[in-house]
Amino acid sequence: MTKKVGVAILGLGVVGGGTYETLVSHHDFYLATQQVDITVEAVLDKNLERLRSLKVADEIIANSIEEVIANPNVDIVIETIGGIGVAKDFVTKALREGKTVVTSNKELICKYSHELEKIARHNHCGLYYEASCVGGVPIIRTLLDGVQANHIQRMMGIVNGTTNYILTKMANEGADYQEVLKEAQKLGYAEADPTADVDGFDSTYKLSILSSMAFHTKIPYTKIFREGISKIDTCDIAYGKEIGYTLKLLAIGKRNENAVEVRVHPTFIPSSHPLASVNDSFNAVYMTGDAVDDVMLYGRGAGALPTASAVVSDVIYAATHSEIRYSTFKNNATAETNVKFISDFTSAYYMRLSVEDKAGVLAKITGIFAKNNVSIVEITQRMDKVEEGRLPLIIITHQTKENSVKSAVAKINASGIATVESLIRVEA
Amino acid sequence: MTKKVGVAILGLGVVGGGTYETLVSHHDFYLATQQVDITVEAVLDKNLERLRSLKVADEIIANSIEEVIANPNVDIVIETIGGIGVAKDFVTKALREGKTVVTSNKELICKYSHELEKIARHNHCGLYYEASCVGGVPIIRTLLDGVQANHIQRMMGIVNGTTNYILTKMANEGADYQEVLKEAQKLGYAEADPTADVDGFDSTYKLSILSSMAFHTKIPYTKIFREGISKIDTCDIAYGKEIGYTLKLLAIGKRNENAVEVRVHPTFIPSSHPLASVNDSFNAVYMTGDAVDDVMLYGRGAGALPTASAVVSDVIYAATHSEIRYSTFKNNATAETNVKFISDFTSAYYMRLSVEDKAGVLAKITGIFAKNNVSIVEITQRMDKVEEGRLPLIIITHQTKENSVKSAVAKINASGIATVESLIRVEA
Repeated sequence: MTKKVGVAILGLGVVGGGTYETLVSHHDFYLATQQVDITVEAVLDKNLERLRSLKVADEIIANSIEEVIANPNVDIVIETIGGIGVAKDFVTKALREGKTVVTSNKELICKYSHELEKIARHNHCGLYYEASCVGGVPIIRTLLDGVQANHIQRMMGIVNGTTNYILTKMANEGADYQEVLKEAQKLGYAEADPTADVDGFDSTYKLSILSSMAFHTKIPYTKIFREGISKIDTCDIAYGKEIGYTLKLLAIGKRNENAVEVRVHPTFIPSSHPLASVNDSFNAVYMTGDAVDDVMLYGRGAGALPTASAVVSDVIYAATHSEIRYSTFKNNATAETNVKFISDFTSAYYMRLSVEDKAGVLAKITGIFAKNNVSIVEITQRMDKVEEGRLPLIIITHQTKENSVKSAVAKINASGIATVESLIRVEA
Repeated sequence: MTKKVGVAILGLGVVGGGTYETLVSHHDFYLATQQVDITVEAVLDKNLERLRSLKVADEIIANSIEEVIANPNVDIVIETIGGIGVAKDFVTKALREGKTVVTSNKELICKYSHELEKIARHNHCGLYYEASCVGGVPIIRTLLDGVQANHIQRMMGIVNGTTNYILTKMANEGADYQEVLKEAQKLGYAEADPTADVDGFDSTYKLSILSSMAFHTKIPYTKIFREGISKIDTCDIAYGKEIGYTLKLLAIGKRNENAVEVRVHPTFIPSSHPLASVNDSFNAVYMTGDAVDDVMLYGRGAGALPTASAVVSDVIYAATHSEIRYSTFKNNATAETNVKFISDFTSAYYMRLSVEDKAGVLAKITGIFAKNNVSIVEITQRMDKVEEGRLPLIIITHQTKENSVKSAVAKINASGIATVESLIRVEA
């Protein structure tokens, strides 16, 4: 039995355009394999050139959101505008009219899913957002319907393609951050204003959504510790590599009973870890569940067609399933009262110190670490890198409290005998 | 609104036992997060010791399948017996009684899903089998509800943990196949009779199920080209590694319009490929869709709790979704008439020849390859390995037809100037 489904697309940019093309070119395929007859009944975009280049028929070009939601042939509204201005207004209007919404908008879902789901629930319609996180990789479907038998204990993700592209280039070519960033901007892999990506904001939005679902609680993005990649020195990537580590910008979530730890920062992982071979603009999420153990999903985190794959898969899912399930996470500053967010988390650390090349310095430094409860696994004096009487000292610590490390660093810097040039967290 | 769901478990072996423990220990978690109140209403297993060690209450121990399916509190029957004897009989009886079935049984699904789904359809109940392939990795859910927007063009999987463990050990330790097999048997990673794993039968069952779903057609396991790992010489793993390849037993499916190519054999892949770092008993499936591009799912392909994760996730899915979707593939010898199975497939090849160390031999060998339309990318004479006047010659070919390579090999062997000692297909 074939089901007829009419969709509207709001915003025909990269993702919206890819979605339009996929729905049109795959119409017969979905009819044959999914028994759904999906037709695009309306599109809304002010940019006439885009509409023309996609060969959108005049009769489905709408003039306003009101026209779209008044159209009785539109069952599902796809929002691919982005941001939280117009997009929020349009999605709200569609849901109020009882239209199911499929969106690729991470900022909207991260900041307003609670509010929007309340409206959806009240109007008996669905809100789907697989495309909001990690492009075409079905991570949200997996969390909802694939590993839902598990207490998810930990999640580590490479969820931003721009930063992974930059770090991969820095590692492979030994180039500096600024140089690689410029090249990435030229190639369209990084925005003119790269802040959202390189400073980790994009990753915190995604971690907020994914960890809220994985941990069945509210993880406001404002509670996420955040550090970007713009201060990474290429020499640290090289030193790390020599001792078996690869540098990635990781989005990390851990849950232990009611204590939650969420952070986005550059991280050294063992080079044999499956995440270490996720290169260029590829993304991956590595999770540990109490039954399933380790699971990783890998794929393209962005791009017109990969993201369209997630949007259209949601459309098909919405069309073929009558139950609507809501996730109810609210990503403003208010978390659930029984959840404790750990800011003084535990991690291993990589440090590079610049020290004077003279006797007794090492003893003083290790003394300061010991006094601050920082226990050292490995310490290497790079005698091969002496320059103007100073040399780099590479230190790897045991699992240590963040605050202990920070106070040790402050004391070393104040001592005058060494300077801590870089501090990178290490995960296994 | 909480939904009450009663389950029965048939067979409390490794997977059934893990499923029982997971359902009992996670009862309150599923109630809180999934709004399902899942209780084990019956278990069927003749082994009293197992029942006792799992502390199964006397009142839920059933004496016969008839008693289980007559129990009105049983909504879902979990089959974790394995094989196609009793398991098939019990599953058939449960479906006839209108009970939804969740199974971890790859052989049953591979050989009889069509027959069983017909009965399920007729009785308006579901048949779920996530646990039949790749343990806890949600590959079937992904194919059904995560990447269903795509024409899947290719799938390459490491779907057997035993052989991946053996190949990983051979690669890392340089040990011989027989030696590693014995160790694997001692550790319980390989069966006393390892045939099903090492000869690739287990992988063909899984490839049959997964490629049937991915390609939306029937892929009988009898149509799958199969070659195991028992003849792999450790030296080839080492030679391959030197030129950038890693050896894996891959289950490969390709679809191009109505032409399908399905094969299970040892395969060299570039060492930078994500599948190359899937080690030990881990499994992974790498797929390419026309929209999503490359996607990989990685995790534990076997084990009590990882497989229980898949079984219980199916139980929760069945309990929370009213639509039942059937896949209708029939894995006997009968394929759909419009599908063409390609046996003379195209691949690149690695070959190791043993040749006499004298002038003119190389010219003769390359001549035979050329005459048989086999074009060579790389040829290396291992002068460092001369032994009794013979040396190994390592050859990598361009994309070539299987039959061309085979006839070239036959001619070289017949020529008396060289012997082809090994032939390994190469995928990128």
